[in-house]
Amino acid sequence: MKEIYNFATDAAMLPAEVMRRVQEELSDARQRGLTMLETGRAAERTRELTDGAEKLLRELLGIPQNYKVMFLPGGTSAQYSAIPLNFLSDHRCADYIVSGQRSKQAYLEAKRYGDMVIAASSAGANPLFSTVPTIKRSDFRPDADYVYMCYNNEIYGTKFHEVPDTGNIPLVADMTSCLLSEPVDIKRFGMVYGGSELSFSTTGLTVAIVRNDLIGNARPDIPSILDYRVLSDRESIYNTPPVFALYIAKLALEYMSGIGGLPELKRRNERKASLLYDYLDGQGYYAAMVDKKSRSMTNVVFTLGSGALDAKFVAEARTFGLYNLAGHPSIGGINASIYNAMPHEGVEALVEFMKKFCMENPKMEI
Amino acid sequence: MKEIYNFATDAAMLPAEVMRRVQEELSDARQRGLTMLETGRAAERTRELTDGAEKLLRELLGIPQNYKVMFLPGGTSAQYSAIPLNFLSDHRCADYIVSGQRSKQAYLEAKRYGDMVIAASSAGANPLFSTVPTIKRSDFRPDADYVYMCYNNEIYGTKFHEVPDTGNIPLVADMTSCLLSEPVDIKRFGMVYGGSELSFSTTGLTVAIVRNDLIGNARPDIPSILDYRVLSDRESIYNTPPVFALYIAKLALEYMSGIGGLPELKRRNERKASLLYDYLDGQGYYAAMVDKKSRSMTNVVFTLGSGALDAKFVAEARTFGLYNLAGHPSIGGINASIYNAMPHEGVEALVEFMKKFCMENPKMEI
Repeated sequence: MKEIYNFATDAAMLPAEVMRRVQEELSDARQRGLTMLETGRAAERTRELTDGAEKLLRELLGIPQNYKVMFLPGGTSAQYSAIPLNFLSDHRCADYIVSGQRSKQAYLEAKRYGDMVIAASSAGANPLFSTVPTIKRSDFRPDADYVYMCYNNEIYGTKFHEVPDTGNIPLVADMTSCLLSEPVDIKRFGMVYGGSELSFSTTGLTVAIVRNDLIGNARPDIPSILDYRVLSDRESIYNTPPVFALYIAKLALEYMSGIGGLPELKRRNERKASLLYDYLDGQGYYAAMVDKKSRSMTNVVFTLGSGALDAKFVAEARTFGLYNLAGHPSIGGINASIYNAMPHEGVEALVEFMKKFCMENPKMEI
Repeated sequence: MKEIYNFATDAAMLPAEVMRRVQEELSDARQRGLTMLETGRAAERTRELTDGAEKLLRELLGIPQNYKVMFLPGGTSAQYSAIPLNFLSDHRCADYIVSGQRSKQAYLEAKRYGDMVIAASSAGANPLFSTVPTIKRSDFRPDADYVYMCYNNEIYGTKFHEVPDTGNIPLVADMTSCLLSEPVDIKRFGMVYGGSELSFSTTGLTVAIVRNDLIGNARPDIPSILDYRVLSDRESIYNTPPVFALYIAKLALEYMSGIGGLPELKRRNERKASLLYDYLDGQGYYAAMVDKKSRSMTNVVFTLGSGALDAKFVAEARTFGLYNLAGHPSIGGINASIYNAMPHEGVEALVEFMKKFCMENPKMEI
């Protein structure tokens, strides 16, 4: 069987071992009529899933005891509203770092609830958002209720390489596209959250890790489904949870734990990213689109220099089992997303293909 | 292989044909690394899923053109807030019919946003909620923005057998536990909605069907994730949708369509329910717990007369492959939930077991 590698930006491959266990779970012989696809909120094993996944996540990330962990249904957009509704105090002001489309959308939604300011932005970079802003503590208003950021910008292939210093202001970070790719010092943040589909499950689940003292101060008219006090009191089962996505999450977290946790994942991810960036830096056919100091470890963005050539590359790569390499329509180019479960061999295969493609498709000007 | 029948109230069995197709989708040979579990919001096939599922749902339910169909992530609880936030006008008043825990929770959440009144309730029934209230048009305030109801109360085994007459007031119905079990005249409602896990998919998805003229009047500070105008404009992909649950939904809707649609499902469901109710009515060992005129077609609730005997029944049934028959902890007894995909043979097996159990476990007083 020909190996297929999926470089999609909007959903990650799952580890082969996780897929094997899912196949087993859904096999007829095992438990026809009682599979995880047919399990609801009241089932004992649903509680086992949320408890088990929380325990694994706490171990992997070293989450301190004074943080709550909540598994929530849906994608991250709900949190764009939930964050201001939960964290704004009476004077309603917060500062946003805008480094891409995710943080921009979060800012626009939050602006509906208070005095929001873009404290730092890389929207002016060329190409768009091809770097992350440099941050200093004085960028923020001392009375801001929180500072918001997106840590890794998967569309643009950028990432913050250090945690911004916000002093005593709680820092809220969307880590959807880098969560569990390497160790992170949770206590530097007031809240870390992320959608599941790029790091630890399939679509339909979000995890939020929130410091206790930030919970319980929500606007009185906040919808209960967005209220972190209500949600954390009910320990991930306020409403019907996405049981199957939780099941995949638990399998994936077990797998991560089994191979050595985040230090080992970081080693693997760095090795994959280096292979690709080193090749990019050592030739002149492909051009990395991202400021060197802002490079993402999980999303490698580059271009062949023309939309037509980029498209040819994407189409031909597919015939070699290298799928979904097209960059986001808003910036074009190539986006090789190499999340946790992308095997090293997948990146090797991509580099081999890149070498072959540039020989077979000389540019006029070369 | 021994057949297993899952009578759980909080999640339904999936049709064998759907499970077969899921197994195929996830098999290695098919598309390793590219399965529906590894597919995100931007993928073409995600749009095909939402479009395809909407088309099938429109055909099956005969949804008129002046209604929007939205697939939303999460369970139904989000709608408990969304409904008042979207539908209340400036004078903020709505009437609730309370026939169980679902509608009670919806009422309590809505009360936070306006002048909500319980227009009719069956909370006083003994046992609790063992009937649905009788409704007349005069129960409702003429200036109510909407009337809210839950059509089938799966915990209590009750169901409304006709659509309440609310005159010109839009009627909003939670149909989580009866959607697609039989034809329904959508145009009698302002909104019909339901969580997926009891009728057309696994957990993690909700479908909302809303009349166009009710969309676009939301409170200005409504979170975008709850705003039906935003959600319907984005055609089920406002945020990252639960792709796998959508995939199961499309398979299940195709299956329903293939066997003859809702008239055929109604025939099958009535036949299953009659088998069980006819047996219950013809003996004296088991007692139906529900008012005869309010009986649910999908959830058959009864008791053996004592908690100890009910528990023995549940435990022993399990050894015969009849799973999850325990009633909800709040009312006890037995709840045989026989949703769409429960085969007729499952109900036959249950009735056979009931006959056997009552012979082997005589009650003192008999």
